Amino acid sequence: MATYYPVFDLNRLFTAGFPIDRTSDMILIFSDFGVTGPYSGAMRAVVHREAPDVTVCDLMVDAPDRNPKASAYLLAALSREFHPGDVVLCVVDPGVGSQRRGLVVECDGVLFVGPDNGLFEILIRRARKCRVKVINWYPANTSASFHGRDIFAPVACMIAKGEPVALADIDPAQRYVPAQSWPDELSEIIYVDTYGNLMTGLVAAPGWQNRSLSLLINGQLLSPARTFSDVELGHGFHYRNSIGLCEIAVNCGRADQVFGAEIGTAVFIRD
Amino acid sequence: MATYYPVFDLNRLFTAGFPIDRTSDMILIFSDFGVTGPYSGAMRAVVHREAPDVTVCDLMVDAPDRNPKASAYLLAALSREFHPGDVVLCVVDPGVGSQRRGLVVECDGVLFVGPDNGLFEILIRRARKCRVKVINWYPANTSASFHGRDIFAPVACMIAKGEPVALADIDPAQRYVPAQSWPDELSEIIYVDTYGNLMTGLVAAPGWQNRSLSLLINGQLLSPARTFSDVELGHGFHYRNSIGLCEIAVNCGRADQVFGAEIGTAVFIRD
Amino acid sequence: MATYYPVFDLNRLFTAGFPIDRTSDMILIFSDFGVTGPYSGAMRAVVHREAPDVTVCDLMVDAPDRNPKASAYLLAALSREFHPGDVVLCVVDPGVGSQRRGLVVECDGVLFVGPDNGLFEILIRRARKCRVKVINWYPANTSASFHGRDIFAPVACMIAKGEPVALADIDPAQRYVPAQSWPDELSEIIYVDTYGNLMTGLVAAPGWQNRSLSLLINGQLLSPARTFSDVELGHGFHYRNSIGLCEIAVNCGRADQVFGAEIGTAVFIRD
Repeated sequence: MATYYPVFDLNRLFTAGFPIDRTSDMILIFSDFGVTGPYSGAMRAVVHREAPDVTVCDLMVDAPDRNPKASAYLLAALSREFHPGDVVLCVVDPGVGSQRRGLVVECDGVLFVGPDNGLFEILIRRARKCRVKVINWYPANTSASFHGRDIFAPVACMIAKGEPVALADIDPAQRYVPAQSWPDELSEIIYVDTYGNLMTGLVAAPGWQNRSLSLLINGQLLSPARTFSDVELGHGFHYRNSIGLCEIAVNCGRADQVFGAEIGTAVFIRD
Repeated sequence: MATYYPVFDLNRLFTAGFPIDRTSDMILIFSDFGVTGPYSGAMRAVVHREAPDVTVCDLMVDAPDRNPKASAYLLAALSREFHPGDVVLCVVDPGVGSQRRGLVVECDGVLFVGPDNGLFEILIRRARKCRVKVINWYPANTSASFHGRDIFAPVACMIAKGEPVALADIDPAQRYVPAQSWPDELSEIIYVDTYGNLMTGLVAAPGWQNRSLSLLINGQLLSPARTFSDVELGHGFHYRNSIGLCEIAVNCGRADQVFGAEIGTAVFIRD
Repeated sequence: MATYYPVFDLNRLFTAGFPIDRTSDMILIFSDFGVTGPYSGAMRAVVHREAPDVTVCDLMVDAPDRNPKASAYLLAALSREFHPGDVVLCVVDPGVGSQRRGLVVECDGVLFVGPDNGLFEILIRRARKCRVKVINWYPANTSASFHGRDIFAPVACMIAKGEPVALADIDPAQRYVPAQSWPDELSEIIYVDTYGNLMTGLVAAPGWQNRSLSLLINGQLLSPARTFSDVELGHGFHYRNSIGLCEIAVNCGRADQVFGAEIGTAVFIRD
C-alpha cells in the first residue's frame, strides 16, 4: 500500500509561537455523542451562548463510538470540509475524567480542539504545517463525564473569538506523543453509514477506479467503480467516496449486511 | 379516488423568463442523507459558508431512501412549510454521477433545487404557477457521488443571494419530462415516521374524519378519526395528519408493526 | 430516599403579575418528535421565521416518547442547560387535540412553553420562584395533531420577542393542578441514551460516589463510581452524570442490554 503523505516529522509539532491571533466565523462539531440525547444540544447551546456571532455547524455527531483510532482516520478524511480559520470541536473521548489531556491543534490554518487520545494523530501527520498546544484550563464545576460541554466547547469559543486562553506551552513533560504504532492508512472499516456503506481508512486518489486494484473483505473480492450508477443493482464494488476514502458499497443494497462487516473489519488490497 | 388538483398542463412549465431576481431569507433542506454521517453536515456547512446571511433549516433529512417517487409525494405534502421566497434544497438522488440533470423549479414563488428524477413531479402538478430550468453549472472538483454538496447547495446559495447562476433555458432537447405514469395521489405508504405511523400518498382534506371512508391495509379495514386522543388505546385508525396527508396510526402503538407495513405497501379506499 | 427540594407550595404558583416584559436571545427545544421526520424541522422553521433574531437550539428531540412523566424528571434535570431569559419550547404531548391546555411556566427566570400534562410538574416543584399561566390563543388553521408547530412555537416566539400574547390569567376554573401523586424523585429509569446508559429520576449530588449507596436493578447490585474510566472494562456502576442524575452505566458496554432495562424499569437504593 502506498504512503501518500510525507513521513511524519515530529519536529514540525514543536514550532515556537502559536499565535491564536485571529477570529473565526465557523465552529464545526465532530463527536460521537449520537444524534439523540441532550449531549449534542447541550454542547451546541454552550457555543451559541459564548460565541453568538459564530456559526455553529454539526458536521457529524456519530463518529465511531468511543473509538479515537477509527475516528482519527475519519476526521482526517473530512479535511475537505474544513477551511482555514475554522475551529473544529472534536469530542470522541472515552477517557473523559481520567488524566488524559486536552489539546489545541493547528493544521494548515484549521484549529482543532479536543482530547489527547490519538484523535488528531492522522490530521497531524498529513498536515503541511502543524502546531500543538496542551489545554491548561479547568473551570470550576467541570463535570467528570462531559468535558465537551465544560472544557472543549468554551475553549473553542475563546479561540474563535480571538480571546486569550490558557494554553500551556509544550515542554518535555507536556509534549504531544504521537501514536506511532498506527499506520498512515488503516486497512479496516472505520465507519458504516446510514445506507450500510463501508468506509475504509484507505485514501483513494482521484481516478481510483482506473487503477486495477481489487479489495478483499471477508473472502469477497471487489472491483473498483466510479460510482453507484455504474454498477448493476445489488452488486458490490469499491470506489472513491465523496470525502476521498476508499468505500465499499452495494448499488441499492446494504454492504454491511452483504459482507458481514462492521467497524474494525479488515480489508486487503490485491493489485 | 378524487383528483384534487387540476389536470397537469405541461405548457405552464415553459413560461418564458425566469427572473431569479430576489433574495431569500431561508434555505430549507429536504434529503435522504439520514441524520447520521457527515453528509447532512457537510452540505449544511457549504450553505453556511456561501450564504452566511441566510437561515438554514434541515426540514427533514430522512426522506424515503433513494426513492424519488415516494419522496415526491412527501415533498409536495410539505408545501405548507414553505413560504414564497424560500429556497428548498432537495436531494434524493440515487442516480448521482449519471447523466441525470439538475433542476431549479419555481412553484408559486418557492424555489426548489435538486435532481431531475421525478422528485419535483407532484409539486409541479399541484402548483398554480410553475417554471422549470435545467442547471448548467458544473464546478471543478465535483465529486461523482455528492452533488448535494458540490452542485445543488452552491446553486441554492446563488439563488438565495440573488446571484446570477448558469441556468440553461429549456429547449426541446432540454425539456422537463413529466413522470406521467405516476398518479396524482399515491395509494401507498410513502413514509414511516419515528412512532411507526404510516403516511400515505393520499391527500386528506380538512374534515377528512367526517367522510365515511374506510382504508384497507394488509387485510385490515380502518375507520377515520380526528386524532389519537379520539381513539381507544391500541386501536388503529386513519386521519388527516399535520401535513394534510391521510395517515394510518395506532393510539400509543406502532402502526408499522401492527399492520406489517413499510414504504410501498398498498392501501385501498373503501367508500 | 431523601427529598432534596422544599415541599411544594401551591401558593407560589399563583403570584399576581406575570410580566413577560423581556426579550430572549435563545429558544431551546425539548421534544419527543424524534430526530427523523418533518416534525422537528417544521417546528424549528416556524421559530426561524417568527423570531429571526433569536438563536434556536434543539436541546434534545428524543425525550421519552409520549411519556410526560419520565420527561418531566428529565426536563427538570436539564435545568443546568437553561439560563435566565431563555425560552424553552417543550413538546411531549400525547394528548394533543384533546382538551388539555397549554401553559407558560416561569421558573427562576426561565420561561417554558408546552402542554399541561405534568411535563412541568418537577420543574415547578424545584423552582425557588415560579409562575404559571394558561395559553388562551388558538390561531386559525391549527392542526389537530401538531400544536408544537401551530401553537407552542408561535407562543414561544411571541414571548422571546417580548410581544403581548394572549395568556389567560389563572383563576379557580383555570388553575394549574399539580400531579401530586408523583414523587419528588423517580426511582425508575427515565431515559436510555445512545450508548445504552440508563438515567434514573434520582438526583445525585456532587460527591455522589463517596456515599456508600448501592443501586439495585433487576436483581443486580451496583456500586457507585466517579466516572467510566474509574471502573474496569465491562463493569456496571452508578454515578452522578453530567446533568446531575444518578445514572447506571457499563464501562465500554451497554447497560440497557446488560441489565435488561428500559424506561420505567424500577431501581432501588440500598444504604
